[in-house]
Amino acid sequence: MDPKLEEILAPLRLSVKEQGDVVRDLKTSGAPELDIKRAVAELKSRKKILEDKELALCPADATFDRTRMEDLLKRRFFYDQSFAIYGGITGQYDFGPMGCATKNNFLQAWRRHFVLEEGMLEVDCSILTPETVLKASGHVDRFADFMVKDVKNGECFRLDHLIKAHLEKVAADKKSSPELKAECETIVIKLDGMTEEELRNVLRRFDMKSPITGNDLTDPIEFNLMFATQIGPSGLIKGFLRPETAQGIFVNFKRLLEFNQGKLPFAAAQIGSAFRNEISPRSGLIRVREFQMAEIEHFVDPSNKAHPKFGSLQDLELVCYSACDQMEGKAAKAVRLGDAVATKLIANETLGYFLGRIHQFLVKIGIDPNRLRFRQHMANEMAHYACDCWDAEIKTSYGWVECVGCADRSCFDLQQHSKATNVRLVAEKLLPAPKTVDFVEVIPQKAVVGKVFKKEAKDVLDALSTFSGERIAAMEADLQNGTAHKITCASGKEAEITKDMIQVKRGSKTLHVEEVVPGVIEPSFGVGRILYSLFEHNFRTREGDEQRTYFSLPPIVAPLKCSVLPLSGNAEFVPLVTKLSAELTRCDVSHKVDDSAGSIGKRYARTDEIAIPFGVTVDFDSLAEPHTATLRERDSMTQVRCPVDDIPHLIRDLSLGKITWQNEVQPKYPKFEQQEATK
Amino acid sequence: MDPKLEEILAPLRLSVKEQGDVVRDLKTSGAPELDIKRAVAELKSRKKILEDKELALCPADATFDRTRMEDLLKRRFFYDQSFAIYGGITGQYDFGPMGCATKNNFLQAWRRHFVLEEGMLEVDCSILTPETVLKASGHVDRFADFMVKDVKNGECFRLDHLIKAHLEKVAADKKSSPELKAECETIVIKLDGMTEEELRNVLRRFDMKSPITGNDLTDPIEFNLMFATQIGPSGLIKGFLRPETAQGIFVNFKRLLEFNQGKLPFAAAQIGSAFRNEISPRSGLIRVREFQMAEIEHFVDPSNKAHPKFGSLQDLELVCYSACDQMEGKAAKAVRLGDAVATKLIANETLGYFLGRIHQFLVKIGIDPNRLRFRQHMANEMAHYACDCWDAEIKTSYGWVECVGCADRSCFDLQQHSKATNVRLVAEKLLPAPKTVDFVEVIPQKAVVGKVFKKEAKDVLDALSTFSGERIAAMEADLQNGTAHKITCASGKEAEITKDMIQVKRGSKTLHVEEVVPGVIEPSFGVGRILYSLFEHNFRTREGDEQRTYFSLPPIVAPLKCSVLPLSGNAEFVPLVTKLSAELTRCDVSHKVDDSAGSIGKRYARTDEIAIPFGVTVDFDSLAEPHTATLRERDSMTQVRCPVDDIPHLIRDLSLGKITWQNEVQPKYPKFEQQEATK
Repeated sequence: MDPKLEEILAPLRLSVKEQGDVVRDLKTSGAPELDIKRAVAELKSRKKILEDKELALCPADATFDRTRMEDLLKRRFFYDQSFAIYGGITGQYDFGPMGCATKNNFLQAWRRHFVLEEGMLEVDCSILTPETVLKASGHVDRFADFMVKDVKNGECFRLDHLIKAHLEKVAADKKSSPELKAECETIVIKLDGMTEEELRNVLRRFDMKSPITGNDLTDPIEFNLMFATQIGPSGLIKGFLRPETAQGIFVNFKRLLEFNQGKLPFAAAQIGSAFRNEISPRSGLIRVREFQMAEIEHFVDPSNKAHPKFGSLQDLELVCYSACDQMEGKAAKAVRLGDAVATKLIANETLGYFLGRIHQFLVKIGIDPNRLRFRQHMANEMAHYACDCWDAEIKTSYGWVECVGCADRSCFDLQQHSKATNVRLVAEKLLPAPKTVDFVEVIPQKAVVGKVFKKEAKDVLDALSTFSGERIAAMEADLQNGTAHKITCASGKEAEITKDMIQVKRGSKTLHVEEVVPGVIEPSFGVGRILYSLFEHNFRTREGDEQRTYFSLPPIVAPLKCSVLPLSGNAEFVPLVTKLSAELTRCDVSHKVDDSAGSIGKRYARTDEIAIPFGVTVDFDSLAEPHTATLRERDSMTQVRCPVDDIPHLIRDLSLGKITWQNEVQPKYPKFEQQEATK
Repeated sequence: MDPKLEEILAPLRLSVKEQGDVVRDLKTSGAPELDIKRAVAELKSRKKILEDKELALCPADATFDRTRMEDLLKRRFFYDQSFAIYGGITGQYDFGPMGCATKNNFLQAWRRHFVLEEGMLEVDCSILTPETVLKASGHVDRFADFMVKDVKNGECFRLDHLIKAHLEKVAADKKSSPELKAECETIVIKLDGMTEEELRNVLRRFDMKSPITGNDLTDPIEFNLMFATQIGPSGLIKGFLRPETAQGIFVNFKRLLEFNQGKLPFAAAQIGSAFRNEISPRSGLIRVREFQMAEIEHFVDPSNKAHPKFGSLQDLELVCYSACDQMEGKAAKAVRLGDAVATKLIANETLGYFLGRIHQFLVKIGIDPNRLRFRQHMANEMAHYACDCWDAEIKTSYGWVECVGCADRSCFDLQQHSKATNVRLVAEKLLPAPKTVDFVEVIPQKAVVGKVFKKEAKDVLDALSTFSGERIAAMEADLQNGTAHKITCASGKEAEITKDMIQVKRGSKTLHVEEVVPGVIEPSFGVGRILYSLFEHNFRTREGDEQRTYFSLPPIVAPLKCSVLPLSGNAEFVPLVTKLSAELTRCDVSHKVDDSAGSIGKRYARTDEIAIPFGVTVDFDSLAEPHTATLRERDSMTQVRCPVDDIPHLIRDLSLGKITWQNEVQPKYPKFEQQEATK
């Protein structure tokens, strides 16, 4: 960054660093939790001030005009609000022909880059998910926010936002006593972890009313961000629209492992819709209620997260914004991927490999690498089970937007589903050498257990099957002493085990494999957010003609690959245009024939707006054999003259990124100099 | 069909024809509706007897073993029940790696065949749909069935099924009086159109109980087959998961027409998920709760449904099962498409063109043309707004399955949404010559209307704006006579119009265009049903080895295009295999390297199971320069020896259907004769 700007930022950086040190000291000295929380809140607020200043000094793109871009996106129906003729629903968007084609091309590029190149197992799982699955994954509990309603008009408020706003007002009030101010401040800090009862007490203690109408408010109501419905006619099976696609992969782990012939590592991938009932959707495609995700779950031996292809990426430089640098108020910096993993900045090779691949993919589809960074989660924002987590953040006019999350989720998910279903979700790992181990196990006398415990016999048997060697020994001791041994089943039910119910078997066996619960590394892509960023990074105004805006989308994601423009409505052009169009279709080149009135320049301007990268103009010279036509590139507006027969293959190869305009087209064909007139 | 079989079927055909004639006569003579319904019910039952007999005499495939195929689909995880480790949910399926890839290839082929070749506008619209939209489309009412619940255990029964079963039992009971039997019969016939109250009366009149427990039943409960949820935190916006993708296109009609520069005809297409809360899902992928559809809405000038490309398909023969032939008990027969449209068997060219394209598509992806027919809806099964409707039905072990519907829906959908939103969903059509027309319109005096009617002023103005010329004249007459003119608003509210409230303007104007509500022709594909049929038509057993089953899926839909098999684990093969794999990826050829132990024959058997059409074996001869390898085709098991450098392009072109094994590969390369050994 510019040294002058750095000078302005220096005191803000220092302020973050000082507070970061305070947090660290409090943690090492084992200070009370409330003090740490208070210090972290202060650290976050200082970080926010620094980041806002940085963005203000160095905005995403000073010349970018969001209103004009949104006008173009809407006018040419890339995407727009759903059900608009019915008044629309916030947070839902329909993709029109150009948006849909761009999205399809994006997803196809993703499939090629990740699924095909890495040999991943792509799956397509159900959207409607029963409650039990999302209970195990933590979503039924974790996705619940509290809200309150206006008792008269039913308007909803997110409770933590309401309390925070109210208490900040109280604290700012000159009439409030210093004690009251301190109390408010403490409550705001503790707000995140409060129980329903504590929240209700705060609400009543300060006698809060609706900030809009002044009406009374209900007690806190639990509001889950998942859309709920009932599956089947009875109304008894509660289900949700999935809030992410990942769980569909986890519940299929056994089938996928088997498909991979039992071997680790392997990755599964899924592209699909997910839903979150946001209380206040905003920022266009960035915070919506219905969206598409593309997720990868890479299953790996947790004791060996090396990656065979990591070497190929080790010289790649990523802009990393480490947790440590964030604590110290430093800027993000470019780091060689090999160094980042060697120094343990990035936890392991597999995580590093995916970060590198994500970088390559985003740049390939048209994200500006200068507006891309990888931000590491700080300890206090990371899910408790994750070991390391990095977000690919893209700088837009909304600030830095989290577009891809890449987390090492350790073994959490499989363990949760295993616990909930009693299905062992493990892989077998060949031991370096066979190992002889002693074992001790309980052989229950099922007939006796069944007779004594009846309906609860299964619970008792399940409990016995989980006993460790030590516990078995303790039980044996009791039984040999003639005492019954008390056990507690998973249901909480207590049972007494007597001598006639079990036998204990001891022995030794040779093991060739051991069971491991695989670790999971999860790159998770928000499709809409990346598409939005892509449009923003590729929105252009033609130099010298402010009215002409267009999208410089790379050919691989551009919605259509070329336009075919007959110079005029003259019937002589029809056979050639028809033949060329058929040939383009045969080569799988999506294209648009625009034989409408209007000068070639005007029609180019229209096709530029919808990001078509190449244009073919058929003119009177084209009619002479051998047929030739003008081929134009959108961004440079340069044109060449080339044989019509060459065109379909040229455009196909350009679209797949196999050749480039600069290197393979311009040098080979004569330049065509005619001026583009738009008037 | 075999004349011997025709002999068996003849009396059944005659029986259908006789009843068809009865129905026709009743209709022409204007018989009471109940009599017609009764005759149609009898006709349907006779048709069912005929069809069952036909299927029994000539089953889809006598040697087909559904259990074995389903075992293979499950074992190699093409698809399987969702959430199985949680006990699963009926009617939901997850597609595993091979099923997902097959589905993706299917959809890509669909896109190429329809969207790309026909220049359709593909869109991707929201799944969550507000109630108002589905109210207008008719789904909120039309999709509602009545059910009753066991009052003790909550078990649900579809009410019409329950009543029908109960009354049929009563009617079959020897102790029932002839009057009672006749009553039961009449109720069963009228069941379809009964109101909630009538159904409740029947339920109580016969004192029906749960057929399972004998417990009492609740009153009828309206059960809508759509999954309901709430959008937003307030719980006030009721929404549904869309039951079809079509509505997303209709509500975007204006944007799409504008994108098409205002011109008709054009087609929009959408691929996406839809949901129906079936009371009893069954038959695997055929009746499920969550499924994918691919729908096309072709908008056309209702007075001109010619199609410019119809000529290219007029010699195509389709097996048509016309409404008329169904009424007469005749068999389906092959008809030349040109003749079918010329004779008005198929209503118009556009509908005919799509039927032809559907036929071509299904055959291209691997549906057996001998098990495909187009069945026309009979007048009594067609939606009231449709002009003509044909289903592409595929014969499977479940009988004839409706896989693609193709309906001329006239202008129904756009009119419904127009009515509900007051947004004009019309296109402008250039008149052959300018036309001068007289017009008369009401100019309301808004100030006066507002003052008199206050809140209801808008309703009054809306009502006035809809008045015809005749109505305006009648109003004028009243006002000139000094009488107030009574009108009724859409809300039902009555209002009196007085002289000071309106002026009437008359004049003439020249029109160059006229507005038309476009007609809609809708081909609608059930993706899961077609995939299931595809698997069934392509399930094969290797001759002489009953244990070896495989899928003969055509290369364009096969999940992976080739396997790469090193002869053994010898390290010398690694560089060549790695290089070949990289080259295949560069050519976008999805493939699987199988370097596991096991003979080549065994590995071929494994790759045949997952429908991989081509296999490359790298052996010791391959190591010598110029490198060569064995290329094997799955269905014929023939092998050729060819240069390794040729292989990626060969397989790419084979996979895209640009060349064939028989015509371009076998003649060009030397045959490789070595035996496949699986043991």
